Amino acid sequence: MTGLNPLKGFRDLYPKEKGVQNFIFEKVRSVARLLGYEEYDGPIVESMDLYANKSSKELLERQTFQITSKKGNPLVLRPEMTPSLARMVANKASDLTLPIKLFNIGPRFRYEAPQKGRSREFYQADFDILGTNSIVSDAESIYTIINIFLALGAIEKDFIVYINSRVEMEKYLLDLGFKKEQLKPLLNAIDKQDKLQKEEFVELLLEIEKNKERVKSLITFLNTKTVEKSPYFLKLFSLLDTYGVSKYCQINYNITRGLDYYTGIVFEVREKTKDEGGFELKRALLGGGRYDNLVSDLNKKLNIPGIGFALSDVVLIEFLQNKKLLPTDIIKPVSCLISVFNKETLNKSIEISNFLRRKGISCELYQDENTKLDKQLKFADKKEIPFVLIIGPSEIKINKVKLKNMKTGEQKDLSKEDLLKILNIKFQVTNKF
Amino acid sequence: MTGLNPLKGFRDLYPKEKGVQNFIFEKVRSVARLLGYEEYDGPIVESMDLYANKSSKELLERQTFQITSKKGNPLVLRPEMTPSLARMVANKASDLTLPIKLFNIGPRFRYEAPQKGRSREFYQADFDILGTNSIVSDAESIYTIINIFLALGAIEKDFIVYINSRVEMEKYLLDLGFKKEQLKPLLNAIDKQDKLQKEEFVELLLEIEKNKERVKSLITFLNTKTVEKSPYFLKLFSLLDTYGVSKYCQINYNITRGLDYYTGIVFEVREKTKDEGGFELKRALLGGGRYDNLVSDLNKKLNIPGIGFALSDVVLIEFLQNKKLLPTDIIKPVSCLISVFNKETLNKSIEISNFLRRKGISCELYQDENTKLDKQLKFADKKEIPFVLIIGPSEIKINKVKLKNMKTGEQKDLSKEDLLKILNIKFQVTNKF
Repeated sequence: MTGLNPLKGFRDLYPKEKGVQNFIFEKVRSVARLLGYEEYDGPIVESMDLYANKSSKELLERQTFQITSKKGNPLVLRPEMTPSLARMVANKASDLTLPIKLFNIGPRFRYEAPQKGRSREFYQADFDILGTNSIVSDAESIYTIINIFLALGAIEKDFIVYINSRVEMEKYLLDLGFKKEQLKPLLNAIDKQDKLQKEEFVELLLEIEKNKERVKSLITFLNTKTVEKSPYFLKLFSLLDTYGVSKYCQINYNITRGLDYYTGIVFEVREKTKDEGGFELKRALLGGGRYDNLVSDLNKKLNIPGIGFALSDVVLIEFLQNKKLLPTDIIKPVSCLISVFNKETLNKSIEISNFLRRKGISCELYQDENTKLDKQLKFADKKEIPFVLIIGPSEIKINKVKLKNMKTGEQKDLSKEDLLKILNIKFQVTNKF
Repeated sequence: MTGLNPLKGFRDLYPKEKGVQNFIFEKVRSVARLLGYEEYDGPIVESMDLYANKSSKELLERQTFQITSKKGNPLVLRPEMTPSLARMVANKASDLTLPIKLFNIGPRFRYEAPQKGRSREFYQADFDILGTNSIVSDAESIYTIINIFLALGAIEKDFIVYINSRVEMEKYLLDLGFKKEQLKPLLNAIDKQDKLQKEEFVELLLEIEKNKERVKSLITFLNTKTVEKSPYFLKLFSLLDTYGVSKYCQINYNITRGLDYYTGIVFEVREKTKDEGGFELKRALLGGGRYDNLVSDLNKKLNIPGIGFALSDVVLIEFLQNKKLLPTDIIKPVSCLISVFNKETLNKSIEISNFLRRKGISCELYQDENTKLDKQLKFADKKEIPFVLIIGPSEIKINKVKLKNMKTGEQKDLSKEDLLKILNIKFQVTNKF
């Protein structure tokens, strides 16, 4: 017996839910086009090798969907896009005009326990700039993110971009007296902070560094927000200021991002709550950073640095719902339903539907010639279709069609040409009745 | 060592190839909206059970990508969309206003040998009408198909819709003296015809029916194109006539479609060659039919008939290339590149890019402040960006920007406001210089 529900962690998107997803990605796409990102796509199935060294083998084997090829090679459903992009860029580096700005929107898969904000299949939009390690591309990435959130209707009080840099952090940590070999464990510990109690976090740090004073100075440092010591951050914030977006950004030394491949700036977007100092969503709405070695790891002859970020529909939908930013009229119905009076008048209804559609007016022809008109009107009502056309024997006799306004109930006999005029300016029609 | 190529049978879509796919599906989507189809989506991973009884178990196990869930259940990457749609409709039948017209565009997977027109991952557009078995929905489906091909730029001489019906065929076969238990094997044999030599086909028929005269009469019948004996076909073609699309359609009794779940009309689109009677592509460009039991197979209490079809991007791209219907300017570049003269003028370039983008004008800011202007101009040239803005110290001094037309080489100093005017009507600009 086949179950009727989708598999655990997977989603059925009925027209309403698909409409929400389309709303989000149409906004994302419009920002991409405005800012000159070009769309690409890669395979959903990749060799498991591609992800090795990017995240721990255990994580890779435990949290991915795996397929065994007929030849026995381990394949996975892509958990993220960046490794595929790096592979594609490495493969055709000589054909590409660098620097290049690319974006992709598509499904990703993670075999983890489904929970709020996490599903096993989700859509992600990825934005990347490859072929430059200029600070301009760092600032442009942040600017892109902010444009996306603004396009979705969010404003300053809704979100914040937290910025840090792995390079700068390492300098700071060395300044605080930590040793080189402690840097990576420290950055990883800081990344895990969100999931830990404060005491647990301190314990974790003490495992890496026994000197309590040094750990204390680190914790103090993590909560500072000044950038004075770093020429990089000073320059970056000056550029963000010129871009007009610095008010959405804040230094946050607690952000180090989990992925091992980041080599410079890292950033996250978090939801802001009404109370500025108050609780913020644990989950990042978006994450990204600079990865200057991802392409050269695949082909040592290539030096193609990159920076990028990804945002998922599942997390964004939650955010937009929280902030009441999802429009209520997600599904735009057709302009009118052309009803079918009976079998004899069917041809006339087809003719009218054909006439309107050829003029580019979206309409629905009722899909059954044996259904009573009454039921067809109820159908239009349920579907929130604003008008119903009635073409019965009496209308045919005078060579007209009857247009019924489903909101007001008013109806009017019209010639084909007058009908066209009204539907062409359909948002004014209700005033005209 | 990770390979740089995608897995066998999978595709990397660089911006040009993604542009081709977008071109196709934007046309498909516009037809869907015009005709009142609503978009939905289902999971890419489904339980293998969902496809059982729909196609042979052997085929299912051999030609699908399989994943074993952590609980040991066999899962597959969806090879087609219709079973997922039937499951979704069965699951929420009471919430849906029927009849409903639905479409989906998304990836499908088949683990078969890659060849021309076949890949292991491809995108398919599926269109379906559920909740009615009216002949109107049969005609509307054919009308939808023809609108898609016309929207893609194809005309009458490019394609033909072959129509048959499993129900009508069974009647014909009984009339020819075949027995009830021979019907299914006969329809399957006729479906395999494309892949067989004529003699092999006759042999296959003789295995089912020993009477040579009867087999001969069947072969004669298969090549007729008249519909006189069938009230269903007469009505259907009369409706297609009213829809204005009968000239694109032809009865073809050789079309029976392989999928077991079809219960009525079946159809295919084939490419027409210049020579009307000549060779036609073996592969169907599109296939579909009526499936009245797919939903009730999942829930016996439901009687929700359906009809639908699917078309794949891989096959369509080949067709459009053959017919020279793919536009040459698939990638629309940004309106202009804002170059960066040097580190000191970077802020000015950011300001101008910000100014234009806020006005909704797509533009690219060069992503490196250390690159010589010369190289930036070459970049714009390679990317076919029509204009480059130059904002150096001399332009800044007079509070202007220099607009360079990359085609003519002409350049002009402009105020921000004049620049905006020109880019707003950018297709007239070349005449104005």
